[in-house]
Amino acid sequence: MDFWEVLETRRSVRDFESSTEVSPEFVEQLLQAAVRAPSAGNRQAWHFYVVRDPKVRQGLAGAAYGQSFVAEAPLVIVVCADPEQSAGRYGQRGRELYCLQDTAVAAEHILLAAVALGFGGCWVGAFDEGRAAQVLDLPSHLRAVAILPIGKPAGKQGIRTSRRSLQTVASFIG
Amino acid sequence: MDFWEVLETRRSVRDFESSTEVSPEFVEQLLQAAVRAPSAGNRQAWHFYVVRDPKVRQGLAGAAYGQSFVAEAPLVIVVCADPEQSAGRYGQRGRELYCLQDTAVAAEHILLAAVALGFGGCWVGAFDEGRAAQVLDLPSHLRAVAILPIGKPAGKQGIRTSRRSLQTVASFIG
Repeated sequence: MDFWEVLETRRSVRDFESSTEVSPEFVEQLLQAAVRAPSAGNRQAWHFYVVRDPKVRQGLAGAAYGQSFVAEAPLVIVVCADPEQSAGRYGQRGRELYCLQDTAVAAEHILLAAVALGFGGCWVGAFDEGRAAQVLDLPSHLRAVAILPIGKPAGKQGIRTSRRSLQTVASFIG
Repeated sequence: MDFWEVLETRRSVRDFESSTEVSPEFVEQLLQAAVRAPSAGNRQAWHFYVVRDPKVRQGLAGAAYGQSFVAEAPLVIVVCADPEQSAGRYGQRGRELYCLQDTAVAAEHILLAAVALGFGGCWVGAFDEGRAAQVLDLPSHLRAVAILPIGKPAGKQGIRTSRRSLQTVASFIG
């Protein structure tokens, strides 16, 4: 799919077809897109939990304060940051900025790749990190930073949320 | 350009043709891509400084610890976060996570859009935020989070940095 079409088509999908098969090849394409994110100092301070197990998806929906569509998606990818991996080289700035930026871009690459493959997803940021860590049995060095339910969009898709005009969000120097 | 080709083609470009014209239409396409980033609660806690002025680019190179290619790019976009705009709704999590994620994705959309239009750029994260704020005369509510020099790639482009195998960066549940 054309790059601009992917950007235009992407929106938050929270309503998924229930019977969609998620192939290993599809998952691999999403992960390959993820690791094509830029990475500060190539630290690759990220880890991806690929969840198909229904009970674990249910647990993640609980961690996300009951957002039930998290459990209804056939696939949930939880993007994790490894703050100390980044801090090892960059100190506080790595821990509190770079690893969050790198994983954010990796998450977006996953969502854009899903669109390019005829799927859709949603960026869930509102969740209890401690509870997500329990559900996934995360090692202590990882921090879950985004929960991405992914599936085939069902029903009528929502309209794109509006954006402020470029004039109000940009300043021009020279 | 095809979405996957954009992903595959993107790499950090630090060597730019010196005579490239940067049209207002090109800048607008980059900004339109930027604001197509997802935004937590649609807070749009971002602002973009579009810099063509050579003196200001030089100042940004100084803020970036003398990374001279920042000044050599015909266009530099500085992506800023508005932490309180996000914190107004989400408190600490908005201030320290969501606004950094949203602006990171906006920055990546700019870099990918540049590739799709035959340009290239680089994500510069290593800079003195206070000095960048001085150079741009930023209002106090904005925080510069990424400096993006953009131009036509010159000379031989670097190879893509290597990535760890998917097996080492992903875990599968179910």
